[in-house]
Amino acid sequence: MTEVLGTWIDGAPTDVVPVSDRGLHFGDGLFETISIRNGRARFLAAHLERLATGCRRLHLPFDFGQELLRDIDAAIAKAPSLAVLKLIVTRGDARRRGYAPQGGEVPRRVVSLYAAAPRSIPDQGVDLHLSSIVSGDQPALAGIKHLNRLENVLAAREARGAGAFDALMPGADGRIVSGAMSNLFIVAGNELRTPLLDRAGVAGVMRSVVIRECGHLGLALAQRVLLPRDLATADEVFITNALIGVVPVRRVGEHAFKMNAISRRIAEHVETLDA
Amino acid sequence: MTEVLGTWIDGAPTDVVPVSDRGLHFGDGLFETISIRNGRARFLAAHLERLATGCRRLHLPFDFGQELLRDIDAAIAKAPSLAVLKLIVTRGDARRRGYAPQGGEVPRRVVSLYAAAPRSIPDQGVDLHLSSIVSGDQPALAGIKHLNRLENVLAAREARGAGAFDALMPGADGRIVSGAMSNLFIVAGNELRTPLLDRAGVAGVMRSVVIRECGHLGLALAQRVLLPRDLATADEVFITNALIGVVPVRRVGEHAFKMNAISRRIAEHVETLDA
Repeated sequence: MTEVLGTWIDGAPTDVVPVSDRGLHFGDGLFETISIRNGRARFLAAHLERLATGCRRLHLPFDFGQELLRDIDAAIAKAPSLAVLKLIVTRGDARRRGYAPQGGEVPRRVVSLYAAAPRSIPDQGVDLHLSSIVSGDQPALAGIKHLNRLENVLAAREARGAGAFDALMPGADGRIVSGAMSNLFIVAGNELRTPLLDRAGVAGVMRSVVIRECGHLGLALAQRVLLPRDLATADEVFITNALIGVVPVRRVGEHAFKMNAISRRIAEHVETLDA
Repeated sequence: MTEVLGTWIDGAPTDVVPVSDRGLHFGDGLFETISIRNGRARFLAAHLERLATGCRRLHLPFDFGQELLRDIDAAIAKAPSLAVLKLIVTRGDARRRGYAPQGGEVPRRVVSLYAAAPRSIPDQGVDLHLSSIVSGDQPALAGIKHLNRLENVLAAREARGAGAFDALMPGADGRIVSGAMSNLFIVAGNELRTPLLDRAGVAGVMRSVVIRECGHLGLALAQRVLLPRDLATADEVFITNALIGVVPVRRVGEHAFKMNAISRRIAEHVETLDA
């Protein structure tokens, strides 16, 4: 991968991982993708909080916080002014063959630094492909950023084939869940609406920032079930993730959105924030 | 992992995998777990057929069949009389950051050989734990043995904690899907019944062997929706996988099964088969 500037595993520079790692065998782990700007890891506390939540949900001991912070500092020291830091935490090496953790596994930290290009999102917004791949209901894993991402891979592949910026993934019952690599918001009058993520999807860090900040911007916020018909009546639509920030959507399938003033106002606001 | 006798990646002995592998990042790949007995890979054709099906479903080119057969032969040459061969095939190294495959990725073959103990299943059968973890509906992935196995990890962890041999995983709607590491059959009179796996679960190789062989044993076969109440009226219950073969179940939650004559007859029959 040409963009990788370096990888450290448990603090040591390397580009290989033991083949016995449960991350490879089962996707037994978590990740975070963090925007680095001028030597600062943006929204780091929120990323670490989600990682800790994920560890708890996977019954993976989160006792490596200090080491991880040192890993991050060391990687940032090598980073250009714009970069991406990807953290992967796995349950570590399998102690026996088979799905069940035996207890006593030692989590493994994989930190990779990537070069990033300046933000280049068109002002008029991006197009989303309506994905044929559902975001499956799995309450035990909903919200956390775990390593089981084949649904996202298949949906992102469709979006790429359709020339779209991202795929919009429905739930099994047809409700809207999220983009393959982003969260979705609808603007309806003075209210932002974003799907509940109790059964599927990843609770994105930029999503949480928008939810936190909307009050300061004079906007109401509702986390609730959103249906395709909510797209038909939306004033604006935007997507979020930690790397792209807030990005207006121009089109989702047959629905076109001519307005994006509120989305752009939010986008400009979150660009000024680092935490 | 003390049981590993050797690992080969793309034919070469090694115990590390590049950190850029999409199997680690997204679980973007497939696996097979094959029983090796006296230098022979049991039911190899069925394993390779499922692997090819999985590749097709993941849009992963299956053009490495000859190399994989050579890998398998080389590993078997090192195998004791009882062994397990685990094949992992990933989409290979990421060509860019992000979920979408870029096209042109080169699949990676990881072949690991493990020592196996002789079959030691109690004649009276094993107990299953009723899992709180559902086997989530995902039609795009149902049936294939992909690397996104966190559900199975969490369910197997519960079973281990409960002292059970395996966990019985329900679907989101309460129907029965499968064990965490096995498929389930119910014996009702002269009929075997096993869940449809069009929305969730892995279509096991030993499951397909039982489905194929039941006619020879004078048993009817129905693949259909099974509900917990079907357990209440079952004569016998058994589970299957490629390593354990056919194993009678003594208890699932509150349901106890006193009979296992048909299950044991099927178990003995499949033990005589290698293909």
